[in-house]
Amino acid sequence: MPEYNAPLRDMHFVMDEVLDFAAGYEAYGLEDATPDLVSAILEEGAKFTRDVLAPLNRTGDEEGCHIDNGVVTTPEGFKEAYQQYCDNGWGSMTGPAEYGGQALPASLGLAIGEMVASANYAFSMYPGLSHGCAAAIRAHGTQEQKDLYLSKLTPGTWTGTMCLTEPHCGTDLGLVKTRAVPQADGSYKVTGTKIFISCGEHDMAENIIHLVLAKLPDAPAGTKGISLFIVPKFLPDASGENGERNSLICGSLEHKMGIKASATCVMNFDDATGFLIGDVNKGLNCMFTMMNHARLGTGMQGLCHGEASYQSALAYAKDRLQMRALSGPVAPEKAADPIIVHPDVRRMLLTMKAFNEGNRALTYYTAQLLDQAHYSQNEDERAAAEAQLAFLTPICKAFMTETGLEVTSLGMQVFGGHGYIREWGQEQQMRDCRIAPIYEGTNGIQALDLLGRKVLGSQGKLLAAFTKQVHKFCQANEGNSQFAAELAKLSQLNGQWGEITQRVAGRAMQNREEVGASSMDFLMFSGYVIHAFLWLKMAMVAQQKLDAGTSEEDFYKAKLATQNFYFKRLLPRAQAHVEALDAGADSLMEMTAEQF
Amino acid sequence: MPEYNAPLRDMHFVMDEVLDFAAGYEAYGLEDATPDLVSAILEEGAKFTRDVLAPLNRTGDEEGCHIDNGVVTTPEGFKEAYQQYCDNGWGSMTGPAEYGGQALPASLGLAIGEMVASANYAFSMYPGLSHGCAAAIRAHGTQEQKDLYLSKLTPGTWTGTMCLTEPHCGTDLGLVKTRAVPQADGSYKVTGTKIFISCGEHDMAENIIHLVLAKLPDAPAGTKGISLFIVPKFLPDASGENGERNSLICGSLEHKMGIKASATCVMNFDDATGFLIGDVNKGLNCMFTMMNHARLGTGMQGLCHGEASYQSALAYAKDRLQMRALSGPVAPEKAADPIIVHPDVRRMLLTMKAFNEGNRALTYYTAQLLDQAHYSQNEDERAAAEAQLAFLTPICKAFMTETGLEVTSLGMQVFGGHGYIREWGQEQQMRDCRIAPIYEGTNGIQALDLLGRKVLGSQGKLLAAFTKQVHKFCQANEGNSQFAAELAKLSQLNGQWGEITQRVAGRAMQNREEVGASSMDFLMFSGYVIHAFLWLKMAMVAQQKLDAGTSEEDFYKAKLATQNFYFKRLLPRAQAHVEALDAGADSLMEMTAEQF
Repeated sequence: MPEYNAPLRDMHFVMDEVLDFAAGYEAYGLEDATPDLVSAILEEGAKFTRDVLAPLNRTGDEEGCHIDNGVVTTPEGFKEAYQQYCDNGWGSMTGPAEYGGQALPASLGLAIGEMVASANYAFSMYPGLSHGCAAAIRAHGTQEQKDLYLSKLTPGTWTGTMCLTEPHCGTDLGLVKTRAVPQADGSYKVTGTKIFISCGEHDMAENIIHLVLAKLPDAPAGTKGISLFIVPKFLPDASGENGERNSLICGSLEHKMGIKASATCVMNFDDATGFLIGDVNKGLNCMFTMMNHARLGTGMQGLCHGEASYQSALAYAKDRLQMRALSGPVAPEKAADPIIVHPDVRRMLLTMKAFNEGNRALTYYTAQLLDQAHYSQNEDERAAAEAQLAFLTPICKAFMTETGLEVTSLGMQVFGGHGYIREWGQEQQMRDCRIAPIYEGTNGIQALDLLGRKVLGSQGKLLAAFTKQVHKFCQANEGNSQFAAELAKLSQLNGQWGEITQRVAGRAMQNREEVGASSMDFLMFSGYVIHAFLWLKMAMVAQQKLDAGTSEEDFYKAKLATQNFYFKRLLPRAQAHVEALDAGADSLMEMTAEQF
Repeated sequence: MPEYNAPLRDMHFVMDEVLDFAAGYEAYGLEDATPDLVSAILEEGAKFTRDVLAPLNRTGDEEGCHIDNGVVTTPEGFKEAYQQYCDNGWGSMTGPAEYGGQALPASLGLAIGEMVASANYAFSMYPGLSHGCAAAIRAHGTQEQKDLYLSKLTPGTWTGTMCLTEPHCGTDLGLVKTRAVPQADGSYKVTGTKIFISCGEHDMAENIIHLVLAKLPDAPAGTKGISLFIVPKFLPDASGENGERNSLICGSLEHKMGIKASATCVMNFDDATGFLIGDVNKGLNCMFTMMNHARLGTGMQGLCHGEASYQSALAYAKDRLQMRALSGPVAPEKAADPIIVHPDVRRMLLTMKAFNEGNRALTYYTAQLLDQAHYSQNEDERAAAEAQLAFLTPICKAFMTETGLEVTSLGMQVFGGHGYIREWGQEQQMRDCRIAPIYEGTNGIQALDLLGRKVLGSQGKLLAAFTKQVHKFCQANEGNSQFAAELAKLSQLNGQWGEITQRVAGRAMQNREEVGASSMDFLMFSGYVIHAFLWLKMAMVAQQKLDAGTSEEDFYKAKLATQNFYFKRLLPRAQAHVEALDAGADSLMEMTAEQF
């Protein structure tokens, strides 16, 4: 049975030594999150996720969810674990104080979120979806709606969902057919079928609050005619407690490749009572509050499965004896050497380690921006953080899930044949991870969002804000001879980032398909450059610690070696993306559909 | 329910137009395989695999195999389908005439094998393993053994297995613990536990012939002390029919990520009667006869899942309506355009198409070498073919399974959320395919075999034999202006292939770890160059057909467009492998095991 131990030392390294979360907490009036408190919370989180959530990961996959006449039962132990999760206050950490939350920094919530999701991703989806739902109500709800729903969602007494997809539309929400008919009392009757609804029905919470995209009878066609509705499973009564059962039901559960302990529901709404949230026909705006939240969470999924897979693979590589090192026996007293001596096994482990730690640095980098966006007193700072988040969100979602999937596949490969056997848990990590590049907007859609909307849509401003930072970093370290080669490489890639953008922009003036033809390679290139930037930051911190003298030499030397590996063995892929991107649209569009 | 239709036109293109199988048949005395007969067989194969095997693929995955007290039952329909497979003579196509085979060319057998495996990979393993077993007996058995076993294995009345792996050893067969004790009558008593035994026990054949690696009591340590034994489930009686039940039993079935309809068995041998095959302590030699066969088959697994995944993804991309083409509506009469209009969907489809067709070309290229190795009257030609097969086998196994896995993952991605749902069949292709980079020697082991044993071990001769061919091809087409850029690129890569080999060889003189540190990138680079060579061959044939005038313009234009896509969008990855390889061993070995 695989174990999960939160990588506290690595987490602290990024939080404290590389990004200095504490400075942000001080600047944004979050001093309550003292270093001692943060450490204590992380340690408790590590215990809870190791002892309570991780042991349910494989059993949850084996058992899956059950449905009987619309009633969904989660796997054994999930309900109790969720209760404990709520009782311990894990769900309410970052929630508003007025609704029972602890108002702790978003960044700390994300760090705990990493642990929860690494230990048991399917479990993490129940509170994860609730957070997105609560965020949308907080941003767009009336005071009454906030008071009513957030007081239950914040402590986790109720959970929430996002109901967007329908059988004939996922990406293209303009095609939504679900209808909402206004009633005399100001409510709406919502009718339609939604599919792929994560946590749409289950037995872990008293009530479930569905946020449903639907169209009014007279709505304009397409995305401009979509509104968002709060549709609770049980209609709250006058005292805000569960009242009448609403006319909605889970019609069936999907049979999926993975995340089997997460109930993926077909939800049927049949004249269900709903309440408009936000303005009529502005539902997509509200939805994006949920989506952006969910996209960062989904990006983190790549990191979480990757980390869990790495922990198992590393333990196996140190334990499994097979063949001798080519340069001579390392463990002559044993029947063979542990496979970690073999260069190709190390190539796999280092690829996993480099992507995981780069993805963690990227996650925490955005986490710090979330703090800034939420809590800075300075409006410009808040806006700057929002802009950077808008730029980074599609990269986090897509690059972290692409690399996370590669990591879990390598984690299986390290195990050889045992990696394919369910009992070892490695194949579950890959199956669970495989959804991440698909849902919450496929990675192809993320790439279009990045290049089309964010980069070209801002006339390059959002990209320039980031490349300027990288440029400053390179300039500030100009005299550094130890990392001269890496700084030169980063600087060159940073310049190239702007150049390829200009080339695409130029081609797109002639042919709009050029954006879609370049977007995925552009996104992957962006991810590799950002990882290079973050790895260099990490390596420089490690070098400083080593120069100053430390009792943790192994830890910091590993950072340097992993950075070196990343630059030499993974970063070269960036150029392949540039070449592919420069091939332009013709290489994709010349065939007719019939010629395929 | 996904369908499978054998891509007959694509198969004929490679067999007839690109590689000219018929010329080989004539040269090697295989004229019985006339073009008409070949066509007829392929068409019958297409029908059988579409109508009989493909419909059992998903049900087989859902039901899996059952075990009850050592008795294994395959999923519903498998037994009957196998009977039909044997009755129709599919299994005996390439078998020797004296044992009831049809003595048809190996290359034709491989083409049928592609169909069988594409329609239902798990099914294909039962006859596939038998072929390996029969090949080993044919090559190393006594006349008596051949007469006894081949007469039953050839028509498929009995099936065979390879029993190599044990709980503590897979790659490192020197560690085998299974013991074989000589008996007075010349037989042996075999005792030990073998794991991961594909088709080790099942209900489809009357008897199962296990080829078991074991050690004699006085055997030298390591791989030099391994012998191979024939251990039948039922001991043949004097008339060659099933006699006494041997003392071996399937202890349990593994729970796997995929290929669930293939029974993966733990086999317990308890003083089971076995018969030595080949010489004492030379078991590994005999095993490699099976392994090389199995490795080509496993490489083809990448093609087969890729092809099945592509067929579904293409149909879905033409059918699914979502969003409008950025350059304007393509199907204005519909609610949205089919997603094949979107460049990023085409990027995925073309990646699938380019890898699949490149892999098919590579498979058939090796198939032709198999014919030459088996049937050429000229000893030098046979030896040359064997040498090329030795060089290409690890590349086929590893490159085709790595790219096949990428293809199946893209096939899921094209489907969006539906790709993750079992009913659509796409996720099964990826789960089934995921074993291919692992078994029959992990891809890391293939890479070591290629670079260490085949390329450096032959002082570069095996590589040079291939690069010479590419060089000749480039020279012969020197005046070709239409493909001038591609020819220049291929020529450059071909030269680089030799250069990187020399660089690795130079470094390896100082440090033996350099081979393992470069091997995987070397193998992937090799695969990309070989695909480039084969794609250029295919494109030139297509261009000739177009120039000559043809009623199949779409077909040939698609070949040209896919070749263009391959060179512009996939081939650039080759340089990333060169850069990674040039990083050398230090980038992998500098960390101690504890620092990980």
